[in-house]
Amino acid sequence: MGAVPAAFLAIAEQAAAVAGAVIRPLFRSALLVEAKGDASPVTEADRAAERAMRDLISAAFPDHGIWGEEYGPERADAEWLWVLDPIDGTRAFLTGRPLFGTLIALLHRGVPVLGIIDQPVTGERWTGVVGEPTRFTSPMGGTPCCRPCARLAEAELSCTAPDLFAPGDDARFDRLRRAARRVTWGGDCYGYGLVALGLVDVVAESGLKPWDWAALVPVIEGAGGRVTDWTGAPLCLGAAGHVLAVGDAALLDEALRLLAASE
Amino acid sequence: MGAVPAAFLAIAEQAAAVAGAVIRPLFRSALLVEAKGDASPVTEADRAAERAMRDLISAAFPDHGIWGEEYGPERADAEWLWVLDPIDGTRAFLTGRPLFGTLIALLHRGVPVLGIIDQPVTGERWTGVVGEPTRFTSPMGGTPCCRPCARLAEAELSCTAPDLFAPGDDARFDRLRRAARRVTWGGDCYGYGLVALGLVDVVAESGLKPWDWAALVPVIEGAGGRVTDWTGAPLCLGAAGHVLAVGDAALLDEALRLLAASE
Repeated sequence: MGAVPAAFLAIAEQAAAVAGAVIRPLFRSALLVEAKGDASPVTEADRAAERAMRDLISAAFPDHGIWGEEYGPERADAEWLWVLDPIDGTRAFLTGRPLFGTLIALLHRGVPVLGIIDQPVTGERWTGVVGEPTRFTSPMGGTPCCRPCARLAEAELSCTAPDLFAPGDDARFDRLRRAARRVTWGGDCYGYGLVALGLVDVVAESGLKPWDWAALVPVIEGAGGRVTDWTGAPLCLGAAGHVLAVGDAALLDEALRLLAASE
Repeated sequence: MGAVPAAFLAIAEQAAAVAGAVIRPLFRSALLVEAKGDASPVTEADRAAERAMRDLISAAFPDHGIWGEEYGPERADAEWLWVLDPIDGTRAFLTGRPLFGTLIALLHRGVPVLGIIDQPVTGERWTGVVGEPTRFTSPMGGTPCCRPCARLAEAELSCTAPDLFAPGDDARFDRLRRAARRVTWGGDCYGYGLVALGLVDVVAESGLKPWDWAALVPVIEGAGGRVTDWTGAPLCLGAAGHVLAVGDAALLDEALRLLAASE
């Protein structure tokens, strides 16, 4: 494939902007305080943000496919497929932590070629386009470049929650966790963004859906890192959602050995 | 005790500002990326920030005591004692998450009467003064008022990490976790700040030092919540650092029953 057309990138960035405009007013709002952990208002925001993105994309590229967390797939067999998660990190959003994100990916014949991680309340945005260096804008600084780290014993591991793993996966993750230098919890897509900033070396999670991981691949790979499943294969839409991201490809062998399913 | 003198509050806010000026430039800096999880540059920032705060406070109030994480106690038996943690949440800081904080507390005869939680990169600050409503400034919004939540089954629980508990404490915490509606991981002092915003209902942690918890007490209590140890007693400087914070005092009985040491 050649370069991703500039018009596709422009619409991706507009999609992040329209989603942010829907999501921002709800963050830490009285509505969420009163909802007391009931996710219904978030579901509303999730849906409204996805509708806004879908409308924008459909109007610009009527022959592209769209697959969003809230409204499912539409023309999923199209050459170009947009994969959307309006609010990745619902718990973070519900509890007022600015570590959730809007995820926008564009796949070309099943391969993620464009990804955006947008944090609408801090104003941070990671933009990855295949074949180009990842870009990052943030009022808090940070440089989109993974750092060298060849051994897990020196690696910062990040993971959203210890309780996200299915039985079996937890023991596999636990081997990785014990080998890593240190683990920091929380973060959803934000932890992957930190890999792309050279501040975290490895993230491993399971049970992720395509809309959770598709945008992360171009972001991390454009910063010099790698994203695979737990066998080292590229992630694909039909797979089980075991995601491994490393800032330094030299970590892959050791991490994959520990994550391997037991005999 | 009467009101906290306005001059004390002014110095507390200046202390947060001078600490932030030291800490901000290091956040996500090349120095931290290159340090690869080695905390030495953070220790340097921690120390420089504490020195700046101590200099300011000592110059303003030479007869006050100061107890900081990095440089220990000085005149700890003074009527007024400042308790300082320049960077609470070292792991968050090291990995580029804007959820660490500078903690500044003022104790009067051992009782916290003023507390500041300052997040120097997002520009958020919680200020609690005994007898006054907690104030909160943030470019991301939020209202400093705890929410009603009378049952753990409806409560959002927050905790920095599952691995922070000493043996014995982990089982006690686990009973609480299982009774709560949901748990969100990560956050250090930030999780307590979210209690004061009515977005989290309960935080329980152990092994905290006075500089980890002293500032949280006026912030949460000024927003309508309560902070106690795991027996329901007020926290005191010599205690073991079992901290329980609730947004609604009605949660205390149920939480304390679950956190009680086994027979």
